[in-house]
Amino acid sequence: MKGCGETVYGAKIGGGFWSAFRETAVREGIPYQWRALNDAVAGAEPSHCMHNFRVAAGKEEGGFGGFIFQDSDVAKWLEGVAYSLRWRPDPELEAVADGAIRAVVDAQQPDGYMDTYYIINGLDRRWTNLKDNHELYVAGHMIEAAVAYYRATGKRVLLDAVIRLVDHIDGVIGPEAGKIPGYPGHPVIEMALMRLYGVTGDPKHLRLAEYFVRQRGQSPLYFEQEDEKNGNAFYWKDSVFRYQYYQAGRPLSEQADAEGHAVRAMYLYSGAADVARETGDAALAETCRRLWDSAVRRRMYVTGAVGSSEYGEAFTFDYDLPNDTVYGETCAAIGLVFFARRMLALEAKGEYADVMERALYNGVISGMQLDGRSFFYVNPLEVVPEACEKDQRKRHVKPRRQPWFGCACCPPNLIRMLASLEDYVYSADGQDAFVHLYAAGSVEMELGGAKVRLAVDTDYPWDGKVDLRLEMDGPAAFALNLRVPGWCRSWTLAVNGEACAAELADGYAALRREWRDGDRVELKLDMPVRLVRANPRVREDAGKVAVMRGPLVYCLEEADNGGDLHLVRLDGVRPEDFRADWRPDKLGGIVELTGPGVRETDAGWDGALYAADIPVETRPARLTWIPYYSWANREPGEMRVWVRA
Amino acid sequence: MKGCGETVYGAKIGGGFWSAFRETAVREGIPYQWRALNDAVAGAEPSHCMHNFRVAAGKEEGGFGGFIFQDSDVAKWLEGVAYSLRWRPDPELEAVADGAIRAVVDAQQPDGYMDTYYIINGLDRRWTNLKDNHELYVAGHMIEAAVAYYRATGKRVLLDAVIRLVDHIDGVIGPEAGKIPGYPGHPVIEMALMRLYGVTGDPKHLRLAEYFVRQRGQSPLYFEQEDEKNGNAFYWKDSVFRYQYYQAGRPLSEQADAEGHAVRAMYLYSGAADVARETGDAALAETCRRLWDSAVRRRMYVTGAVGSSEYGEAFTFDYDLPNDTVYGETCAAIGLVFFARRMLALEAKGEYADVMERALYNGVISGMQLDGRSFFYVNPLEVVPEACEKDQRKRHVKPRRQPWFGCACCPPNLIRMLASLEDYVYSADGQDAFVHLYAAGSVEMELGGAKVRLAVDTDYPWDGKVDLRLEMDGPAAFALNLRVPGWCRSWTLAVNGEACAAELADGYAALRREWRDGDRVELKLDMPVRLVRANPRVREDAGKVAVMRGPLVYCLEEADNGGDLHLVRLDGVRPEDFRADWRPDKLGGIVELTGPGVRETDAGWDGALYAADIPVETRPARLTWIPYYSWANREPGEMRVWVRA
Repeated sequence: MKGCGETVYGAKIGGGFWSAFRETAVREGIPYQWRALNDAVAGAEPSHCMHNFRVAAGKEEGGFGGFIFQDSDVAKWLEGVAYSLRWRPDPELEAVADGAIRAVVDAQQPDGYMDTYYIINGLDRRWTNLKDNHELYVAGHMIEAAVAYYRATGKRVLLDAVIRLVDHIDGVIGPEAGKIPGYPGHPVIEMALMRLYGVTGDPKHLRLAEYFVRQRGQSPLYFEQEDEKNGNAFYWKDSVFRYQYYQAGRPLSEQADAEGHAVRAMYLYSGAADVARETGDAALAETCRRLWDSAVRRRMYVTGAVGSSEYGEAFTFDYDLPNDTVYGETCAAIGLVFFARRMLALEAKGEYADVMERALYNGVISGMQLDGRSFFYVNPLEVVPEACEKDQRKRHVKPRRQPWFGCACCPPNLIRMLASLEDYVYSADGQDAFVHLYAAGSVEMELGGAKVRLAVDTDYPWDGKVDLRLEMDGPAAFALNLRVPGWCRSWTLAVNGEACAAELADGYAALRREWRDGDRVELKLDMPVRLVRANPRVREDAGKVAVMRGPLVYCLEEADNGGDLHLVRLDGVRPEDFRADWRPDKLGGIVELTGPGVRETDAGWDGALYAADIPVETRPARLTWIPYYSWANREPGEMRVWVRA
Repeated sequence: MKGCGETVYGAKIGGGFWSAFRETAVREGIPYQWRALNDAVAGAEPSHCMHNFRVAAGKEEGGFGGFIFQDSDVAKWLEGVAYSLRWRPDPELEAVADGAIRAVVDAQQPDGYMDTYYIINGLDRRWTNLKDNHELYVAGHMIEAAVAYYRATGKRVLLDAVIRLVDHIDGVIGPEAGKIPGYPGHPVIEMALMRLYGVTGDPKHLRLAEYFVRQRGQSPLYFEQEDEKNGNAFYWKDSVFRYQYYQAGRPLSEQADAEGHAVRAMYLYSGAADVARETGDAALAETCRRLWDSAVRRRMYVTGAVGSSEYGEAFTFDYDLPNDTVYGETCAAIGLVFFARRMLALEAKGEYADVMERALYNGVISGMQLDGRSFFYVNPLEVVPEACEKDQRKRHVKPRRQPWFGCACCPPNLIRMLASLEDYVYSADGQDAFVHLYAAGSVEMELGGAKVRLAVDTDYPWDGKVDLRLEMDGPAAFALNLRVPGWCRSWTLAVNGEACAAELADGYAALRREWRDGDRVELKLDMPVRLVRANPRVREDAGKVAVMRGPLVYCLEEADNGGDLHLVRLDGVRPEDFRADWRPDKLGGIVELTGPGVRETDAGWDGALYAADIPVETRPARLTWIPYYSWANREPGEMRVWVRA
């Protein structure tokens, strides 16, 4: 099966849902994080980030501070800045970023090495703990930043530095005699190298990425040898997953299920999908499909969250999807978007875009407060604030988002995701253009030999109507493949005002014809409320439904509906019983749903705990549903996605 | 309100449900544990117990082995032996126990001190960590053993030893200047001292018990001072409960809720109830009632299990009763029986006896395999074996009982509970006799001036018919108070074959009349199946029912019903739809229930994880229910108490 073509760089997102969201994220996040990197946030612990680079460069006295992977915060910030500069030019910010890049490059060693922890603490210990010490993780993020900054600005300073870094890594790690036959404990460098290969075309970069994907988990196990040789501790020794925490218990080709730390899994699978596509390796592609199926068809929440367990921030087992003790890290949902986008490149199937959309509109952006100032690591589907305080099983679940400086991982990841969103919307291969997501904006592509500008106008996800207009320098024949989301059961297409039947293949309506300048396409996706059930094997959702409309998962919040949400039942409510109203002043503007339901009362209980003869009493309830991503933006209270049917 | 009078010692249990159960427990457990105490169990880690006493007495070389509270295992064993000797005379066993007592007493110090850990490791450190080092806990259990052994055999060796021990404690700990103003981190000595007071009548013993109950949690906090002075660690510093882990965060009179470690809570409240009754302190009685209400009306499982959380083996908060991650330690349910029995002594209300019965027939005996050879610490109400292996939240939950030597706490506690069960059945105060539990057997009491022998014949809990016969040396007027369980909605009484109306006061039918030798009373308690619901505030049980019959909670097990029990629904099944059949060959002989239900199928799902348009399909199911206590006696599989209604 054919992939969806190449990412179309240079697309625009303008107006609509995403514009406001990412404007907030960038406006609040980028300057805030720069202050954090420079230890200038009042009341926050110092991050030591830029300090570490200056110490490593010999320009400042002191020791290394922060986590062993502290450098990656600078890389993620730079990557986010790079993406934002493409649609939000800011010469002042660019100058600051150039300065940060100089500081990073100043610390680089003559041999190309670039990790300040080891530069400061002793280079003799570098590469002795690939399992836990994150050198390749930091390198991976630095590579991603360099490629993004080069693509956005054309500036090569950081790009050239990471090319030297990769040369160094390639000299130290690899299958050849005398090299370390290792791979990273925390993947990311695999997809980073593939991005680098995308700008350099250097086969060495592809080869190294491929090596990391294939060497992982080979016997004898490098991590075991490394632990033994260097006396490293093995934290997960007695855990269920052991080396599968790192997805390194056996070769990827022998891994049947999504296991271990969810973010690491998503990053690794993303890199593997990149490699599979680039090398045309059918077996590796099949491995990616198998891991996709495990992660998405048996281990994913309805919000696109992955990672059921706080222990190890990890996957557990098939259909184990507890709503209240879930981990569902924001970064893991972002990783799932990465993975989905790469599977789409491998084969143009709507299933991948559906998951990408599901995660983006729900489990990813739920991570950010609407004001862009606080963040969730953990994205639960059911919250009772009292339990988060008093139940040890739920202490990782927070009923309100935490300020930025409390965490260094998810917020910058969210920013780089949102700031680069246009790269996920379109793809093309010269003959076929794909629209994967619907966002107001435009894109320019070379199609059928013509230069085509496609302008999109839509209120998606609030409304299912999408207007597309083509501006061309001459007529040309090509296929416009418009995604019809898996959730959509009824849709129409019109070209220049005339209804038009299009074949639906693998989730895309293909309009293959000769197009002319000014052609208009109108896609109407019916967007009724849906009462979604989970597969019967999902124990925690038995007898329950989730309310969805379009790509959005809805939830009940105490602020609208009172507490004790476990007492709410829908009792045969049908989708057509719901109203959908645009509420511009609520939660940044949402389509709110209201509908009937009942609420069990405690009539007759009078303090009893168990009884056989107290009938269940209910009273009618008018329920108000808000998009899941917008929860916890008012006073803290209960929230629930899955409601008793 | 009046209490239920004094425990009638010397009652007999003969035949029926309990005889077999406790015969098994004692026959298997007592010799096994004696071998364990002497490090003679092949394949088991040595317990070091008797060795420690010999080392402490200077009769053997070596160091201290085992937990800091290792001596308490010997005490619990002696207590169980003592109770068993009352109904299962065994001169050989008694001689062994006498020998063990000699070993214990040989290790006692000239000043009366008795803890081998400190005798071996240095007496200079004794009494420096009352919070965690269990000296008073060990002393408490030794006192309980001594009183039980004295009552059973009339032998005073251990009794005299613990009286000297208490003298020593009284000289070191107390409110007077120069003494340590402390109390035990793990209660038990409070109720032990009250038992001791019951045989000695020495006001010092009452006073010390009272001191421990009242001093606990007074400001300044002794545990804080002790930690500071002696540099002790405080493991629960960052926990939700802090000093309330030990029920010592504030005085008992200011504690509104059952909090912290559940076994400690139950033992402490039991001692407090003893003190309240003996001193007639109305405020302390009110405190006991308040803590009772919290533990039993808002924090108790339908099985009588208490302690919702594995973290701290502790209570959590009101109505937080997760069925799958519950702790529900066997010892905590036993502690609840202790507490209930003492509340009954404080006031003769059926509610206390109801809870005592609920715990005994469900959450207590579920702790023991039917063959008496393996045990549960944790008593879950919902088990999926795969989750116990793969879900970190459930790794404390075991789908099969563990062999004795794996744990030293619950098994001997179960034995002493079962071996002393007759002490929980009757009470009397010379004018009023109470029958709290129905068990085949007999008791002799002095009532209305006459010597009365009451013989009870019943198949309870399988059948609700109870025949009582009075043998007397002459006519006498007194009240026979027969408990009518709270679950019973319809019952009849007949005296000498004639129906008789009796007033029901606080859960007891009072038959007040002049009785004659040979009088027969027949109590018939209707015992239909009941579909029990939990208070609507219990989130985990919303929309579910538990099946009960008489005092027994029933459950579904995979061995009878297949797996995926979350897919079972009762769908309007009524109690009268169930059949109850005596199955002598199943699980040691049970009344099995069978009834209709439905099972959701996965028809139409075809591997999908979420869908809006797949209708819920069901097929009829014939369900087989077994008593909860008998679960996990066949091949491991799923089990579930609360089933979707």
